[in-house]
Amino acid sequence: MKSRAAVAFGPGQPLQIVEIDVAPPKAGEVLVKITHTGVCHTDAFTLSGDDPEGVFPAVLGHEGAGIVVEVGEGVTSVQPGDHVIPLYTAECGECLFCKSGKTNLCTSVRATQGKGVMPDGTTRFSYNGEPIYHYMGCSTFSEYTVVAEVSLAKINPDANPEHVCLLGCGVTTGLGAVKNTANVQEGDTVAVFGLGGIGLAVVQGAKKAKASKIIAVDTNPEKFKLAEEFGATDFVNPKDFDKPVQEVIVEMTGWGVDHSFECIGNVNVMRSALECAHRGWGQSVIIGVAGSGQEISTRPFQLVTGRTWKGTAFGGVKGRSQLPAMVEEAMKGDIQLEPFVTHTMGLDKINEAFDLMHEGKSIRSVVHF
Amino acid sequence: MKSRAAVAFGPGQPLQIVEIDVAPPKAGEVLVKITHTGVCHTDAFTLSGDDPEGVFPAVLGHEGAGIVVEVGEGVTSVQPGDHVIPLYTAECGECLFCKSGKTNLCTSVRATQGKGVMPDGTTRFSYNGEPIYHYMGCSTFSEYTVVAEVSLAKINPDANPEHVCLLGCGVTTGLGAVKNTANVQEGDTVAVFGLGGIGLAVVQGAKKAKASKIIAVDTNPEKFKLAEEFGATDFVNPKDFDKPVQEVIVEMTGWGVDHSFECIGNVNVMRSALECAHRGWGQSVIIGVAGSGQEISTRPFQLVTGRTWKGTAFGGVKGRSQLPAMVEEAMKGDIQLEPFVTHTMGLDKINEAFDLMHEGKSIRSVVHF
Repeated sequence: MKSRAAVAFGPGQPLQIVEIDVAPPKAGEVLVKITHTGVCHTDAFTLSGDDPEGVFPAVLGHEGAGIVVEVGEGVTSVQPGDHVIPLYTAECGECLFCKSGKTNLCTSVRATQGKGVMPDGTTRFSYNGEPIYHYMGCSTFSEYTVVAEVSLAKINPDANPEHVCLLGCGVTTGLGAVKNTANVQEGDTVAVFGLGGIGLAVVQGAKKAKASKIIAVDTNPEKFKLAEEFGATDFVNPKDFDKPVQEVIVEMTGWGVDHSFECIGNVNVMRSALECAHRGWGQSVIIGVAGSGQEISTRPFQLVTGRTWKGTAFGGVKGRSQLPAMVEEAMKGDIQLEPFVTHTMGLDKINEAFDLMHEGKSIRSVVHF
Repeated sequence: MKSRAAVAFGPGQPLQIVEIDVAPPKAGEVLVKITHTGVCHTDAFTLSGDDPEGVFPAVLGHEGAGIVVEVGEGVTSVQPGDHVIPLYTAECGECLFCKSGKTNLCTSVRATQGKGVMPDGTTRFSYNGEPIYHYMGCSTFSEYTVVAEVSLAKINPDANPEHVCLLGCGVTTGLGAVKNTANVQEGDTVAVFGLGGIGLAVVQGAKKAKASKIIAVDTNPEKFKLAEEFGATDFVNPKDFDKPVQEVIVEMTGWGVDHSFECIGNVNVMRSALECAHRGWGQSVIIGVAGSGQEISTRPFQLVTGRTWKGTAFGGVKGRSQLPAMVEEAMKGDIQLEPFVTHTMGLDKINEAFDLMHEGKSIRSVVHF
């Protein structure tokens, strides 16, 4: 079938709005009509050409909401008409990782997903007869997309898709990092480095967890107002000090914070985040994705004196098991999604969403079809 | 009073056996007659001059067992005749850290201990009227030593001091790292880097925890036999391979080990230990102490895909609360200490203990007074 899509034909080029061909879902696959999609920094990272796994031409986008149109052979967990959120972290329930009960890092479609193809090694997208690749198992920048059954969370059909699409990536990542990876407890202290969508979601999660102090850190003080609305209690602009920001935070708190979160992807900030963690038990969670080949470093003494260094992907959330409940929380207002949506636009304006992001003017732009 | 002691008069020099003067214990302090002391790599590290905190002249030694001779004003938890193990990690029970329930890193005497003096800022040792410094709050290379009350674990007087002195450092560190820091569970897989005293204690701890696979890693294959006796199931000499040892271990195990332990103090090995940890949930514990200024590094992707990097000091064991029970375990044979003691000697031969260690011929030499 024909589908309007924003295609990334090559690195560094604007997306082109074209009509592509979408083949029917094969066994274990599902055809989804996307109604809304967020535009995330990861899309921009791949579009820039810096992502070593990036393949072109491709349909980017991984933060969407939609409705099932058609299911392939053997698909049983969803049916046409179901409302769904595509998952870039699948959940098959059967692999070593899903069965472990210790991680959300399902391996069922991992190898092919990283190469931009469906599990059978082929693509369902084409343009003028030439293949177009998939992206993160989602490709939500197309009105119609094909995803693996294991990569779909079935959600309450009454949820507002313009909001809950954000649970497909950034907001879930931030909230999950607080709850699943760090397990922040009432009264704990928290530092959040980087106040983009994920950082603000961490702030919201820390407030939900009743953290006693939520230190928001950013070099752009214009972001502090929104962070305060989300629940941040203290604000640090590293540019205001002539010493490392980790020293500033240790001095503010006595011995450092119980939990710190790096939400940027900067390896130097990752070090700061670790080193502002509390002696004895503080932990630091890396959420941001660093550039290819970059490394983190610190003195081992930081760990020997009780700090723990962790990371998280999709906030440790198992998409099919846990995302439906998070959608319900959003519907009840226990998770607030609306404040993240600073811009909405039609697909034809999608390049403006990238511009707004690069200029630091948006938290999230949501594109509707 | 007069006391025979092995004094480190300067970095890189052999210890000198001399008769020093030991002043009576002040308030909160205890005079202990040391009967046995192990010689540990940390003593050698400080003696070499590489330890930035090292001060000279000093009475080294921190792995001892002894008997209380006299208590200073206000001391209530021990009395003359009590059998004790000095603790380089104190436990006051009252500081933020002791009260947290999350760490053993008591701060009560930390600042002065690091400077080689008692909590009041002075030393109890002198030689020809000149001050001699303390070491790690213990100074067990002296027949009589003065330690803070908070730095003494009172133990069963029937325990064999030639064995239980090893619970003052290496063995407790290894066993505690497995139990407290990593919390190894039955059936878990483990890799141990470095088969000195601490590494062998980790092997013993992993066997106690019923680990299913215990991979012993060392560049000296002569150590594998003893590791096998302690419970190791697999043996890897990194020199036998032309690829990084972490790749070898990942291939041996499928996805890496549930827990890895670095027991050397080599920052490159620390990286290998992290990177052989299981995707999704593997954790790596740094036990070894790296040289001053050295740093660990890795790609943050290692953490984002579920590995955790930790460290431990004294195995996370709270000395006064937990060491007495470990002594009981040793008396019942549930902790085996005898196999660690490869050499015993009188104080006058203590420099031979350092030679044996440097030549890799001993696990532990125990010196008796």
